[in-house]
Amino acid sequence: MNYDQIFDAAIDRLHSEGRYRVFIDILRNKGAYPNARCFAGHNGPKPITVWCSNDYLAMGQHPKVIAAMEEALHNVGAGSGGTRNIGGNTHYHVELERELADLHGKDGALLFTSGYVSNDATLSTLARILPGCVIFSDELNHASMIAGIRNSGAEKKVFRHNDVAHLEELLAETDPALPKLIAFESVYSMDGDVAPIHAICDLAEKYNALTYIDEVHAVGMYGPRGGGITDRDEAAHRIDIIEGTLGKAFGVMGGYIAADTRIIDVIRSYAPGFIFTTSLSPVLVAGVLASVRHLKESSVERDGQQAAAATLKQLFTEAGLPVMATTTHIVPLMVGDPVKAKRISDILLAEYGVYVQPINFPTVPRGTERLRFTPGPSHTEAMMVELTRALVEIWDRMELKLAA
Amino acid sequence: MNYDQIFDAAIDRLHSEGRYRVFIDILRNKGAYPNARCFAGHNGPKPITVWCSNDYLAMGQHPKVIAAMEEALHNVGAGSGGTRNIGGNTHYHVELERELADLHGKDGALLFTSGYVSNDATLSTLARILPGCVIFSDELNHASMIAGIRNSGAEKKVFRHNDVAHLEELLAETDPALPKLIAFESVYSMDGDVAPIHAICDLAEKYNALTYIDEVHAVGMYGPRGGGITDRDEAAHRIDIIEGTLGKAFGVMGGYIAADTRIIDVIRSYAPGFIFTTSLSPVLVAGVLASVRHLKESSVERDGQQAAAATLKQLFTEAGLPVMATTTHIVPLMVGDPVKAKRISDILLAEYGVYVQPINFPTVPRGTERLRFTPGPSHTEAMMVELTRALVEIWDRMELKLAA
Ligand SMILES: Cc1ncc(COP(=O)(O)O)c(C=O)c1O
Ligand SMILES: Cc1ncc(COP(=O)(O)O)c(C=O)c1O
Repeated sequence: MNYDQIFDAAIDRLHSEGRYRVFIDILRNKGAYPNARCFAGHNGPKPITVWCSNDYLAMGQHPKVIAAMEEALHNVGAGSGGTRNIGGNTHYHVELERELADLHGKDGALLFTSGYVSNDATLSTLARILPGCVIFSDELNHASMIAGIRNSGAEKKVFRHNDVAHLEELLAETDPALPKLIAFESVYSMDGDVAPIHAICDLAEKYNALTYIDEVHAVGMYGPRGGGITDRDEAAHRIDIIEGTLGKAFGVMGGYIAADTRIIDVIRSYAPGFIFTTSLSPVLVAGVLASVRHLKESSVERDGQQAAAATLKQLFTEAGLPVMATTTHIVPLMVGDPVKAKRISDILLAEYGVYVQPINFPTVPRGTERLRFTPGPSHTEAMMVELTRALVEIWDRMELKLAA
Repeated sequence: MNYDQIFDAAIDRLHSEGRYRVFIDILRNKGAYPNARCFAGHNGPKPITVWCSNDYLAMGQHPKVIAAMEEALHNVGAGSGGTRNIGGNTHYHVELERELADLHGKDGALLFTSGYVSNDATLSTLARILPGCVIFSDELNHASMIAGIRNSGAEKKVFRHNDVAHLEELLAETDPALPKLIAFESVYSMDGDVAPIHAICDLAEKYNALTYIDEVHAVGMYGPRGGGITDRDEAAHRIDIIEGTLGKAFGVMGGYIAADTRIIDVIRSYAPGFIFTTSLSPVLVAGVLASVRHLKESSVERDGQQAAAATLKQLFTEAGLPVMATTTHIVPLMVGDPVKAKRISDILLAEYGVYVQPINFPTVPRGTERLRFTPGPSHTEAMMVELTRALVEIWDRMELKLAA
């Protein structure tokens, strides 16, 4: 048994497929987002423009968020010092759960250390509480949902992406006496498309299934109060469990679910991933409180983001770049090859000071490698014109195809 | 299928066993730790003394930590805005990984959003990379290690707590050709005892097994530089993977592993729980950097903690309270009944302004319910005398047995 050899082989596989990941070492400049500094080279930090952040609305730099975090830091200190049950239940946590429940029109909410953990812990626990539970899962569901479903040990039936007819087929063939859970996302973050929420809820009612929606790429950004696509489409009351992150549009870190208090109490009481871990730092929680409250009242950030996304899609389209059709704020350019996607990204960073990460397997299926742009309210039209020009130049240089 | 009924039944089970958890709603007072405010009653916050925090050395309130977090907040903002691979790899993360690798004398380290996630993600991924791997797990291992082992799908052999002879028996009966991993903790947080690290490493060498140690309740607190029990006992070089938290003695939030770069690269590249989640907020990372650096140089906090623990154990023993024999900073009082443990805790909070959480199943085995005190450098002798007096009074009132 030579362990080193096995580990080396695992890493070699990544190199040979062109998908070994190198992390770009950056620091953002507070107040000057999307500008940042990159520490990749040897001549000190280099200024760059960030085009792939999921701090979608730049709330991570919002003065209200910064002020709230600073206040909490001086009021109570850095960490919570304990699990939620043992000393780590601060008043900030209690308040934020109330705020998030209200955001989604639910009775209760529960905080987790991340969106990943909220999916993993909730799905795995829920299915274990419901003996014989069958989980119906969209084929493009996020890795954290897949982990939760796998870890639950429940039977899983995968339906084709956003395919309601296929979902119904699977529901119809399943024993009506068994508990059922339909798990899906609202905005799919790599393709930028949106689930047919009401149609899925119709099926859930017809077949008596619980519904679980991941709104990670929608909370803060859609709906009059930022409650996500379920807020915009007035579907929140039809969904049993809404899951979200505090680390993307809300700009900080953490995750949560919102649901009726009965479900919240079950997850709170039984999920190891919730129980046996130090709770979120009160500093983060205070920042999120400010962020959620702000985005409940203000639509300026949402409008700015939608306008920026529309402009960038138009510029890409006019230039003949292979922009994927999306109905959301996400602007992906299809490349279809991991080595080329990385090469384009490397040139952008080295020659143009543009930072956009190539997206490769396992984040997207092989053969659909892409560059994923997330323009926000702080990206100016001048930046977008410059970006488009750079991409066209690289596309030419690499002899990639542009549309006529 | 009535879902509500199933959920209600799950909650009723907890009530009937006396282990339904009510979270105590508190805020610490920065600079005045262990003093805090409790929001349980109706007459506004009430002052309390916290006796069960895992911010063991009060580093969560250390001026250097607060200053570093404030600086990062103003320098780069609240959240990282992305996964480590996509925009969330800040220079703080890179520096902290270097610092933690150095702390444990390893080539590399890897940050996770929590200690829980570091255990779950690392153990589940490691065992999946090593086909046929058998994991040897101490029976008192933490829930997060148990989750990781279960999620790996690997065969698990549980050895009796700290029982090296039993571990050898299990190793000897296992096919020598199979990959093996021994997973254990250094300080067991509920009993306060310590693993026979060198003896376990001897067996690992004899049977060619990898070793994985959870130093969550030891990092920062043991060893001349705070590298944990493996630092104190000069065993770090014999352990393949050292895991720790940033949320207890380091006072902030997060988790990590330290190991040679080959193992770090495998986990970094393959663990979904590392890859698919927003990275730690740079604000937290900056705070931890200050905390780790301070505790590498300063032993005042460690010495203060050990002195406080010795004093409290002595006072409890002299009063005849059922203090469990421990060789560490952890001071548990055995109660042996969930309802009584909760009742004692309730009286302490309501009548004495003392906050200590009752510890019940599943955190400890049924029948070993206890109160767990974590005195630190900021708990004064006067506080301890007062605490002891309160406990004796309650023990009397509840007609519990005191030693002669
Ligand atoms: C769809 C989806 N769900 C969940 C997560 C995890 O959320 P978090 O980053 O808060 O862990 C992500 C990405 O990180 C995601 O894209
Ligand atoms: C032994 C042990 N390992 C891991 C953890 C998890 O660490 P964290 O709180 O950082 O998630 C804990 C407690 O929380 C623990 O007691």
